[in-house]
Amino acid sequence: MTTGIKLVTIGGGSSYTPELMEGFIKRYEELPIREIWLVDIEAGQDKLDIVGQMAQRMWDASPYDVKVHMTLDRREALQDADFVTTQFRVGLLDARIKDERIPLSYGMVGQETNGAGGILKAFRTIPVILDIVEDMKQLCPDAWLVNFTNPSGMVTDAVIRYGKWDKVIGLCNVPVNAMMAEPELIGKKPEELIYSFAGLNHFHWHRVHDVHGQDVTRDIIDKMYDGDSGIPANIHDMPFFQEQLQQMNLIPCGYHRYYYRAEEMLAHMLEEYRDPSVGTRAEQVKQTEAELFELYKDPNLDHKPEQLSKRGGAHYSDAACETIASIYANKNTHIVVSTKNNGAVPDLAPDDVVEVSAYIGATGAKPIAFGALAPAEKGWLQVMKNMELCVEEAAVTGDYGLALQAFIINPLIPSGETAKRVLDELLIAHKAYLPQFADKIAELEASGVTIKDEVVQALQPIHQA
Amino acid sequence: MTTGIKLVTIGGGSSYTPELMEGFIKRYEELPIREIWLVDIEAGQDKLDIVGQMAQRMWDASPYDVKVHMTLDRREALQDADFVTTQFRVGLLDARIKDERIPLSYGMVGQETNGAGGILKAFRTIPVILDIVEDMKQLCPDAWLVNFTNPSGMVTDAVIRYGKWDKVIGLCNVPVNAMMAEPELIGKKPEELIYSFAGLNHFHWHRVHDVHGQDVTRDIIDKMYDGDSGIPANIHDMPFFQEQLQQMNLIPCGYHRYYYRAEEMLAHMLEEYRDPSVGTRAEQVKQTEAELFELYKDPNLDHKPEQLSKRGGAHYSDAACETIASIYANKNTHIVVSTKNNGAVPDLAPDDVVEVSAYIGATGAKPIAFGALAPAEKGWLQVMKNMELCVEEAAVTGDYGLALQAFIINPLIPSGETAKRVLDELLIAHKAYLPQFADKIAELEASGVTIKDEVVQALQPIHQA
Amino acid sequence: MTTGIKLVTIGGGSSYTPELMEGFIKRYEELPIREIWLVDIEAGQDKLDIVGQMAQRMWDASPYDVKVHMTLDRREALQDADFVTTQFRVGLLDARIKDERIPLSYGMVGQETNGAGGILKAFRTIPVILDIVEDMKQLCPDAWLVNFTNPSGMVTDAVIRYGKWDKVIGLCNVPVNAMMAEPELIGKKPEELIYSFAGLNHFHWHRVHDVHGQDVTRDIIDKMYDGDSGIPANIHDMPFFQEQLQQMNLIPCGYHRYYYRAEEMLAHMLEEYRDPSVGTRAEQVKQTEAELFELYKDPNLDHKPEQLSKRGGAHYSDAACETIASIYANKNTHIVVSTKNNGAVPDLAPDDVVEVSAYIGATGAKPIAFGALAPAEKGWLQVMKNMELCVEEAAVTGDYGLALQAFIINPLIPSGETAKRVLDELLIAHKAYLPQFADKIAELEASGVTIKDEVVQALQPIHQA
Amino acid sequence: MTTGIKLVTIGGGSSYTPELMEGFIKRYEELPIREIWLVDIEAGQDKLDIVGQMAQRMWDASPYDVKVHMTLDRREALQDADFVTTQFRVGLLDARIKDERIPLSYGMVGQETNGAGGILKAFRTIPVILDIVEDMKQLCPDAWLVNFTNPSGMVTDAVIRYGKWDKVIGLCNVPVNAMMAEPELIGKKPEELIYSFAGLNHFHWHRVHDVHGQDVTRDIIDKMYDGDSGIPANIHDMPFFQEQLQQMNLIPCGYHRYYYRAEEMLAHMLEEYRDPSVGTRAEQVKQTEAELFELYKDPNLDHKPEQLSKRGGAHYSDAACETIASIYANKNTHIVVSTKNNGAVPDLAPDDVVEVSAYIGATGAKPIAFGALAPAEKGWLQVMKNMELCVEEAAVTGDYGLALQAFIINPLIPSGETAKRVLDELLIAHKAYLPQFADKIAELEASGVTIKDEVVQALQPIHQA
Repeated sequence: MTTGIKLVTIGGGSSYTPELMEGFIKRYEELPIREIWLVDIEAGQDKLDIVGQMAQRMWDASPYDVKVHMTLDRREALQDADFVTTQFRVGLLDARIKDERIPLSYGMVGQETNGAGGILKAFRTIPVILDIVEDMKQLCPDAWLVNFTNPSGMVTDAVIRYGKWDKVIGLCNVPVNAMMAEPELIGKKPEELIYSFAGLNHFHWHRVHDVHGQDVTRDIIDKMYDGDSGIPANIHDMPFFQEQLQQMNLIPCGYHRYYYRAEEMLAHMLEEYRDPSVGTRAEQVKQTEAELFELYKDPNLDHKPEQLSKRGGAHYSDAACETIASIYANKNTHIVVSTKNNGAVPDLAPDDVVEVSAYIGATGAKPIAFGALAPAEKGWLQVMKNMELCVEEAAVTGDYGLALQAFIINPLIPSGETAKRVLDELLIAHKAYLPQFADKIAELEASGVTIKDEVVQALQPIHQA
Repeated sequence: MTTGIKLVTIGGGSSYTPELMEGFIKRYEELPIREIWLVDIEAGQDKLDIVGQMAQRMWDASPYDVKVHMTLDRREALQDADFVTTQFRVGLLDARIKDERIPLSYGMVGQETNGAGGILKAFRTIPVILDIVEDMKQLCPDAWLVNFTNPSGMVTDAVIRYGKWDKVIGLCNVPVNAMMAEPELIGKKPEELIYSFAGLNHFHWHRVHDVHGQDVTRDIIDKMYDGDSGIPANIHDMPFFQEQLQQMNLIPCGYHRYYYRAEEMLAHMLEEYRDPSVGTRAEQVKQTEAELFELYKDPNLDHKPEQLSKRGGAHYSDAACETIASIYANKNTHIVVSTKNNGAVPDLAPDDVVEVSAYIGATGAKPIAFGALAPAEKGWLQVMKNMELCVEEAAVTGDYGLALQAFIINPLIPSGETAKRVLDELLIAHKAYLPQFADKIAELEASGVTIKDEVVQALQPIHQA
Repeated sequence: MTTGIKLVTIGGGSSYTPELMEGFIKRYEELPIREIWLVDIEAGQDKLDIVGQMAQRMWDASPYDVKVHMTLDRREALQDADFVTTQFRVGLLDARIKDERIPLSYGMVGQETNGAGGILKAFRTIPVILDIVEDMKQLCPDAWLVNFTNPSGMVTDAVIRYGKWDKVIGLCNVPVNAMMAEPELIGKKPEELIYSFAGLNHFHWHRVHDVHGQDVTRDIIDKMYDGDSGIPANIHDMPFFQEQLQQMNLIPCGYHRYYYRAEEMLAHMLEEYRDPSVGTRAEQVKQTEAELFELYKDPNLDHKPEQLSKRGGAHYSDAACETIASIYANKNTHIVVSTKNNGAVPDLAPDDVVEVSAYIGATGAKPIAFGALAPAEKGWLQVMKNMELCVEEAAVTGDYGLALQAFIINPLIPSGETAKRVLDELLIAHKAYLPQFADKIAELEASGVTIKDEVVQALQPIHQA
Repeated sequence: MTTGIKLVTIGGGSSYTPELMEGFIKRYEELPIREIWLVDIEAGQDKLDIVGQMAQRMWDASPYDVKVHMTLDRREALQDADFVTTQFRVGLLDARIKDERIPLSYGMVGQETNGAGGILKAFRTIPVILDIVEDMKQLCPDAWLVNFTNPSGMVTDAVIRYGKWDKVIGLCNVPVNAMMAEPELIGKKPEELIYSFAGLNHFHWHRVHDVHGQDVTRDIIDKMYDGDSGIPANIHDMPFFQEQLQQMNLIPCGYHRYYYRAEEMLAHMLEEYRDPSVGTRAEQVKQTEAELFELYKDPNLDHKPEQLSKRGGAHYSDAACETIASIYANKNTHIVVSTKNNGAVPDLAPDDVVEVSAYIGATGAKPIAFGALAPAEKGWLQVMKNMELCVEEAAVTGDYGLALQAFIINPLIPSGETAKRVLDELLIAHKAYLPQFADKIAELEASGVTIKDEVVQALQPIHQA
C-alpha cells in the first residue's frame, strides 16, 4: 500500500506552478506529498516541460523526495489522486486578450472575470471543468477538487450544481491581499484583527473586528482615504466614495471598483487600451509570462523567482496550498473560499455557491453564517448571483437567448445593440472553445459578423512570439 | 346620517382631473358619489379654480347631483372621507424638468420615474404622502387611499412600510395599455385573453393565455416584431431583442426598455434633449398642460376634451375610478396594482409592495400568486426592489450615504464621480422640497456645487409663462 | 372532427357518481359533454354496472344526448380525454376499515385522512395516481386531472412533484361546507361574505369579510359558540377553544379538531369504536353504500336519491363539476382547491401544494396570495407539510425508515413502540396494495407481526355481504 | 484605571457556583478575573452566604487574588461589569416541582424545559431577564451576557428579540456530554472527531466526521444500540428507533426522546411520579442541593465536592467558563451555543435564535452554516421554533389566548380540556411570578380553579425544610 499524497494539477504548465511548489515544500511536514502530476494540453507541451523540470528542481533542492510527473494524459494523472487543483486557461492568454479587447473596442469594460470577458471565460471553462469532474467520479471519487481557474465562483458553482460534485473548494487571492494590507492602516498586525467576508467571488464585502470584539471597519474605511487598501495589482487604484463605505460599514473587495466607480474604471481601461505602450492586462501578463519562462529555463534555478509576484495572482497558490494542508491535517484555518452557501449568506439560496469566511478542515469548508445584508448590498448580491446562474446555464446548454440575458443583466455591460454585437463577436472569436454554441456561431458568421481589425492585429505579434 | 361617498383628490388642480370626473360620472350608478373635494396647495390655486369649475360643469351636465369643493385646506377635505386619491406633484412640472435636465446635462437618463429623476421624485414625494397618511389616521381612519402619484410603487410601499397604513392601492396605466394594445396583434379582443402580471411599478412582466388555457405569450412576442406593442406615449418605441423575450417567455413592460435597451434609450433622450424644438418630456407636457388649461377656462366646456389623451397618463384615471368602484361595489375586477406582496411574487419578501395582477373588491387587492421567476428576471427584480428600499429609507431619514448607494445601485446611473455630481445638483435644485437633506444641501452649497446654466435657462421661459 | 367534451371518471363505480352526473346535467349549457367514461377495476365491476346504468338513465331523463361508457380498460377510456376525475379508493372500504380499526385497536386516532390511516391511504394511492398520470402523458397530454381521491392534498402534491404533471386540481368539500354554513350564524347570505382560505387539505384556516370590507371573522367565531359551524358529517362536533380562535382571528377547518381538541376527539372515536351498534365511519359508510346501491338498481330511478347526502362527501361532486365548468368556460369562480403554492402561502415553499382560495379559469387555479401566518399557525402548517413530504417520498420509495419518521412527526400519533406496531400492522394489513414495501412487509411477517383479531373480525361480516 | 475582569453571576446562590469557580480558577491565566459578584434575591440570602463564602475559600486556596462579593443589589453588581452570567431560577426549586407535578397529575409530561413546565418556566423567566438587560444597557453597555438559565434557547431569543441586546450567548451542557460520550463508542478520542450541531436548545441534531473527512455518524448510530450514548443524567435512557436514526443520518440530542419516544418517556415519568420513594426530578435535585449546601457550610471545604456532578447540569459551568475565556482571549473554540441564526440553519429565519456549532471568539459566536435539513427534521424544527415564539410573546404580553396556543402546538401536550386545565393550574400555582397574567389568574381563581391536593402536599415537606 502506498503512503503519502498524490496531487494532480490541471493546467500544470502555468507560470504559477513554481509558487505552488514553494507552498507545498514549505508545508511538507504537515502535507506529505508523494507525487505531483502536472497535466496540460498539447498546445502547452513546451511550457509544461519547462515548468515541470523547474518544479522537479525545486523539490530536488528541498529535503523531500517528491516526483514531479508531466503528462498530457489527464486520465492517467487522475487515477487515485487525493487532491486535484485546476489552474487551466481555456484558449490560453490569447483568449484573454480577446475577452479584453473585443469589449474595449466598443468602449466597454474588457476584463477576464468581470463583464463580457468574464462571461465568455465561463462559457469556455465550465464545459471543461465538468469533463474533469466526470473523470474524477470514475478515477478518484474520494479526491478533493481545489479550483483556482477563473471565474472561480461560477466554476465552483457549476461543479456542484451541474457536476453534482460536492468535494470542491474555489479559491481566490483577493481576500488574502485585503487581510494582509489593511491591518497596518490602523497600526495592527494581521493576527490582531478578525475578518468576516461574505458575497461572491470578486464581489464580496468584509467587516473587521479587533481582538477586543470592537468593530474597527469604520476605522479602516477612514484610513483608506489616507493610503493604500489592498487593491490587487491588476485593478486600477480608484478610491470608493467614503460616504458609501461609511453607510454600509463594510469594506468592498477591489473588484467592486468596477461596479461602484464604473465611470472611472472604464475611463482608465480605455486609456490603457488606447496606449500601445501599455496594452491590456492580458498583454502585460503575456510579457511577464514570457520573461518568467525564460527564467524557468535556467537549469540552475531551483526556487521561485522574485518576478512571479508581479502577476496579479500572487498568494493564489499560497491560499491553495494552505487549503489543501488544512483539509489534510484538519487544521481549521480561516480561509475565504467559494463553497456551497448552506445559509451563510441568507439573502441567497442555501445551494448557491458563495465566497465567505470559512474554517477549512477535514470535512472541507465550514462557512460562517454572516447574516442578512442591508438592502443595497443585498440587491447587488442578488443581481450578481442571478447573472452567474444565467451564465452557467448558458454555458451548459448553449442557449443564445440566455447568453444575451446574461449580458443584459450584467451591470458592467450597457444593454443594447452594442452589447449584442460584443457578444456575437466574442462567440465568433472563441469559436474553437464553444462547441455548445456552434449553431449560433455558424449563423452569426453566415450573417457577416466579424471581429474588428484592431483586435485581430493585437493578436498578431503574440502569434509570432 | 349622510349617504353617498365623500371623495377627496389631493393634487386636485391637475389637468387629469376632468378624466377622473368622466370616470366617476360613467360609474355613478355603482359608485354613488355625494361630494368631491379637490385639494391643492397655494401655488396651484389658479389651476385648482379652473379645473374645479370645469369639474363642476361636467357634473352639472350629467344626470347626477354632485358638489365639487375646491380647497387649500387638506384637513378640512379629509374629514370623514371614504376615498382619497393622490395625484399631486411636489414642485410641479418645473421639478420634473430638473429631474430630466440635470441628469441629461451629464449624459444620463433623465426621466421622472426611472433613474436619478425617479429617485429625487421619491425623495420629494414620500415625506408628503406620509403627512397625508398621518392626517388620514385622525380624520378618516376607514378611508381607502388610491395613489397615482409617481413613483407609484415606492410611494405605495412607503405608505405601508413607514406610514403603517394598509388600506392603500397604487395605480399605473402601463398594464392597462398593454392589455388594450396587445390582443389585436394576434387577432383577439381584450376579453379573449387572460393576463398575469408580476413585478414592480414600471418594472413588471406579464404572460398571456387564451380562453382555452393555451399560453399565447410567444405568439404575441413574435407578432411584436411586426408592429406596435402598447408602448406608453412617453416611451420611445425601441423594440426589445426578440431572442431575449423568447427566452423569458414573458413580455416586459414598456419601461423595461430603459433597462434592456439602455444604449438606444439614452441616445434617443439625449437627441431630444439637445433639440430645442423637442425638449424633454416635462417641457412637452408643460405645453400640453398650458393648452389644456386654456381649454378648461372655456365656461361652455363641460366634458373631457380630446387633447387630454395626448398625455402619457391616459387610462390612469380610468384605472383609478374602476379601482374605487370595485372596492365600493365588491366587483372583484382584475386590475394590475401596487399592493403588499403577501407572497404573490415569492422572490421578494411578503411585506414588499409589488405590482401584480389582483382582483379588487371590498377588501382591497387580492394579489394572484405568480410563482417564482427564472434567474434573469429574478435578479433584475431583486436589484430594483432593493434600490427602491434604499430610496425610501433615504427619503425618510435624509441619509446622504444611502442616497448615494441608491444612485450607485440604480442600473440607469453609471456609478462614479458624475453620478455623485448629479445627485448633488439635484439635491440643491430641489432644496425647497427636501428638508430632510437640509444639512447636506447646505454643505454642498458651501462647497460651491451649482447647477449648470443650461438647466437654469430651461426653467426661465416656463417661469415667465 | 368531434365536438363536445370527453370526460373520464376513474373509480366510476363509486356511489358518488350520480351526484357527479347531476352536477354535469345542471351545467350542460356551459359544459357541453359529449361522452362520459366510467372506469373501475375488476373487483368493482358489479358496482360499476349498477351505477353506470343509473348514470345513463339520469342523462336519458335530461334533455341532453350524452353517452355513458363503462369500462375496466383505463387506457381505452383516457384516449383523447379532456377532463379526468379521480375518485377511486385503493382497497375499497375494507381498506378504510383497517385504516380506522388498527390504530383504534391501540387507542390512537383511526381516520382515513388524518393520522396513521391517512398515511397508509397515501401509501396505497400515490403509486396508482402516478400510473394514471403516466397514461395521461401518452393518451391525453392536454387533459386536466381533477382529483378528489383522499388524501387529496398529498395526492395532488405527488402528481406535480413526482408525476411532473401540472394540469391538476385537488378538491375537497370542507371549504364549501364552511362557506354554506357560517354566513347564517351572523345573519348573512353566502354571497354577502368574502372568504379567504389558506393551508393544506383538511388543515386550513379562513378569514371572512363582509362586502363593506369589514373583517367579520371574530363575529362568526363568537357566534360559533351559540350554534353549529359547518362541521362535516364525518367529524364529531367538538367546539374549539374560543380564546384560541379569538387569538388567531382565523377559523380553522373542521378537521383541525383532531389537532386542537385531540383529547376529546380521540375519546369520542374510541367510544364509537367500542360500541358495536355504531362502528367506525367506514362501517357506517359501507352500510350507507349498500343501501344506495340497492336504490341504484331500481330501473325506474333516474335522478340522484336523497339518501346520498348522508355521506360526508356531499358537495364534493358539486365542487368538481363547478371546477371543470370554470376551467372549460373560463368562469373565474372562487373555489378553494389544492394547487401549487406559487407563493400564496409564503410560509411554505413555492412548489409545495397548498389548499387555498383561488380563482378557477381556463389556466386552472390562480391562487390568491394570503400572506404570512402568525407563529402558531405557521408552526402547525410547516410541521404538517413536512409530514406530507415524508409520506409522499415514502410512498414513492418504500423507505420504511421514512415511513416511521412520518408516523413519529404526525401530531395525531404518539411516538413510541405502539406507533411502530401500528405502522407494522397496517403495512401487513394492506400488503396487497403496497408493493413498494414488499421486502419490509415480508420481514415483518417473518418476525411474527400479526393483526389483532378484533380488526380481522370487523372485516368478516363485510366479506360475506 | 482598573485592570482585570469584573464578572457578575445572577443567581449566584446556586449550588452550581463552586463549579463555576473551579472553571475560572483553572482558566485564570487566560482569563484574569479581578472580582466576582454573586447576586441573588432576598429569599436566597442564606444560600448566597453559604456558597459565596465557599467560593471565596476556593479562590483563597488558589494562587490568585480574587475578591468574591455577595449582594442582593443587582444594579450595584452590574456597574461596569465585563461579563454577566445568569443562572437564576425564578421561584426556586418549588416552582420546578410545580412545573413537574401539575402536568404529571394529569398524566402529561412534567419537565422543567419541555412541555408545559418549560413553557411556564419561560413565562416566569423572560420578564426577569428583560429587566436585567435593561439594567445592563445603563450600567455595563459593553458587557457580554452568558445565559444558562433554562429554557436557555427561549431566554436567549427573548434577550435579542425583545431586549434588543445582541451581546448574549446561551449555553447548555447537552452537546458537551454528547461530544464526550460518543467517541469511545467507535473507539475514538473526542479530539479525533468533528462535530456539527444544528437545531434549538434541547432540540438539536448532530453529524460527526472523523479527521479524514469521513462521515461516521452512521457508525456511531449503529454502536448506540450496543451501549450508552451521552444521555444526560436527568433523561431516562430510552433508545431511539434505529431505523429512524439511520434514515436521518443525524444523531438527535437526549431530549429528543420526549418527542421520538413520547409513549415510553411519559410512562417512565409517571412511574417515578407515582413512586413516593423516587419523586420527580425537582425533588431529587432538591435533596441533592440540600446535601450540597450542607457540604458547602464546611469552613474547611475549599474545592468543588464530587457530589456536584450528580446534578444533571454537569459541564454547564465548564461550558460557561470556556465561552467567557474564548470571548476574552479570542480563542475561536468550537462550542455549541444558542445564538442568532444568521442563516446557519436556513430552515429558520435569520433572526431566530438557534443552537448550533459555533466558533467563539472576541466577536462572540460565529455560527457554522449547517445547510438545509430534510423534511422530517425541518418539520420538527419549525414547529418547535414557532412554539417558542408563541411562548416568548405570551411571556412578554401576558396574552392568555397565545399561552393556550403554545400549549396546543406543543408536541408534548395533548390538546384539549385537560391541557387547558393544566395551563390554568400552572398559572395559578405560579401567580407570584406572573404579573403579566394577573388579570387572567384572578379570573381563573374567581371561577374556582384550584390545584390538586397531591401537588400541594408534595410542596409541604419542602416548605418545612
